[in-house]
Amino acid sequence: MLYLNNKDIEEIVDKIDLIEILEKGFQMYGEKNYQMPERMHLNRDDDTILYMPCITKDIIGTKIISLFPKNKEKNLPVISGIMLLNDIDTGLPKGILDGSSITAYRTGALGATGIKHTTGRNCKNIGLIGPGVQGFHQLLLASKVRNIENIYIYGRNKENLKDFINRLKKKLPNINIRPADTSEELVKNSEIIITATPSESPVMPNNKELLKGKHIIAIGSYKYKMREIPDALYELIDEVYVDTELAIEESGDIIQPLEKGLINESQIKTLSEIMSKEKDFAKKTTLFKCVGMALLDVVVAEAIFTTALKLNKGTDIPL
Amino acid sequence: MLYLNNKDIEEIVDKIDLIEILEKGFQMYGEKNYQMPERMHLNRDDDTILYMPCITKDIIGTKIISLFPKNKEKNLPVISGIMLLNDIDTGLPKGILDGSSITAYRTGALGATGIKHTTGRNCKNIGLIGPGVQGFHQLLLASKVRNIENIYIYGRNKENLKDFINRLKKKLPNINIRPADTSEELVKNSEIIITATPSESPVMPNNKELLKGKHIIAIGSYKYKMREIPDALYELIDEVYVDTELAIEESGDIIQPLEKGLINESQIKTLSEIMSKEKDFAKKTTLFKCVGMALLDVVVAEAIFTTALKLNKGTDIPL
Repeated sequence: MLYLNNKDIEEIVDKIDLIEILEKGFQMYGEKNYQMPERMHLNRDDDTILYMPCITKDIIGTKIISLFPKNKEKNLPVISGIMLLNDIDTGLPKGILDGSSITAYRTGALGATGIKHTTGRNCKNIGLIGPGVQGFHQLLLASKVRNIENIYIYGRNKENLKDFINRLKKKLPNINIRPADTSEELVKNSEIIITATPSESPVMPNNKELLKGKHIIAIGSYKYKMREIPDALYELIDEVYVDTELAIEESGDIIQPLEKGLINESQIKTLSEIMSKEKDFAKKTTLFKCVGMALLDVVVAEAIFTTALKLNKGTDIPL
Repeated sequence: MLYLNNKDIEEIVDKIDLIEILEKGFQMYGEKNYQMPERMHLNRDDDTILYMPCITKDIIGTKIISLFPKNKEKNLPVISGIMLLNDIDTGLPKGILDGSSITAYRTGALGATGIKHTTGRNCKNIGLIGPGVQGFHQLLLASKVRNIENIYIYGRNKENLKDFINRLKKKLPNINIRPADTSEELVKNSEIIITATPSESPVMPNNKELLKGKHIIAIGSYKYKMREIPDALYELIDEVYVDTELAIEESGDIIQPLEKGLINESQIKTLSEIMSKEKDFAKKTTLFKCVGMALLDVVVAEAIFTTALKLNKGTDIPL
């Protein structure tokens, strides 16, 4: 059995095209060529263990993720876990991958795939609200699908923000990266805005004029109570793009506007539906809301695993 | 993160009292001091991936087991998988244990705990129908709770049976171990009979006279269609002992007799209910039917993990 930790995965993802891999995943999603049971979870107080299994024609994988919010106070990762891959023919465990890395890269690539298919091709300015682990990977991958010149980042913890920008500059040395004083300033300067927070109230001003023509990639909300996107945005868009129909059941950024009548279900389209169609989003206001799904995790994990075997990376664990 | 393979676990279980650990597990079960969601599974053709998570006051664990029947033809294990343990305070993965070993030792200890609490104390002759991995561990652990003098084994594949007996003799050198020509001969010679087969029809003669006074430990049936125990036995017993109430939903050896009216639900008692009561089973006919549950896997895995840390066993995997 092969074990791939954080560092192994970091080395490998530089050598593969995660966005292309996710596009294949979305194609499978469109063809319904997989089995993906409803997520199972254990809960205690605010802590959650989340089980995300999926089987496709060629892959068996399960992500098991711990979400322990109080780890933040202990300087430990809030998200941790493993991704297990089994051999498709024999069921034998063949790989264990660091689950937080898989989550971070998959989510980063998911946002980037959204950017590729729902924003203007010439966007050069991008803003991030929520400088955390997920946000970091959003920007890394976004820079692979657009020629980004400027990155603006807004976060309330100024020390954390400074550290975040320093780390990001090392990874993206050719892009101007700077903090924004307010989320309003950030939205004003950016064509694409990524929100990656656990917020329960909108993280951008509820201002139609300000939001008009912007492309929003919303990552954060995965529960009913969580909201990142202000009501005004829904008045500016014809359609809401989602990664999976599960977003309709899971995210406050979809459920609450539906309840308020700001949008209706027929306006919600999955990325797999629109991906193949050539569209010009340059002049449009758009929203891509993603919540993630096991299918995307397993296609990413399998690609990383296969590449690790080829490149002789990782630690072999005797079963 | 600590990884414990088959060999590590084999070394460790010799140093701990698995039956005492399971008794503690049954106590927790009685006190309902745990969270154990319904088992989740992926199915394709005859192949199954089974997810068994459980959280107690002190333990978070998940067993992920592949059941691939066709592996037998490939000379690969039908049951494989992993057991993941997470830190109770931070959720971080702390251990991965070989899942088939955990299953085998847990099931062996489960049968033995059944023997300890539902058979006569002076039983000296034990029979096994179904010489497979589970059966092997049944006998290993049974020998810890009764002073076994003779073991009789019945299996249809004679070559496999011979090999099984040779391997068992090495582990239990002071016990007479011999094959039985028929299951009838086996039942006649044994006071305790363990059935550990995937059979869909009873593996013992449907003969009241023959079965009277025998103690049956039934391991095999975990689906509606699976039956090991003949109808006649149910006429001889006052109560059916089970490890968990889930047996009523899962095992053909419980569901089918209930449907036929051979027993009724009020006769079904869990081991945790009867364990603390002193009872003399010497003259009685008894049936202990177990299907296993995640709670027992996690208490066994945690005990093995804790002991491994103390004894400095296993392979450390950098997260």
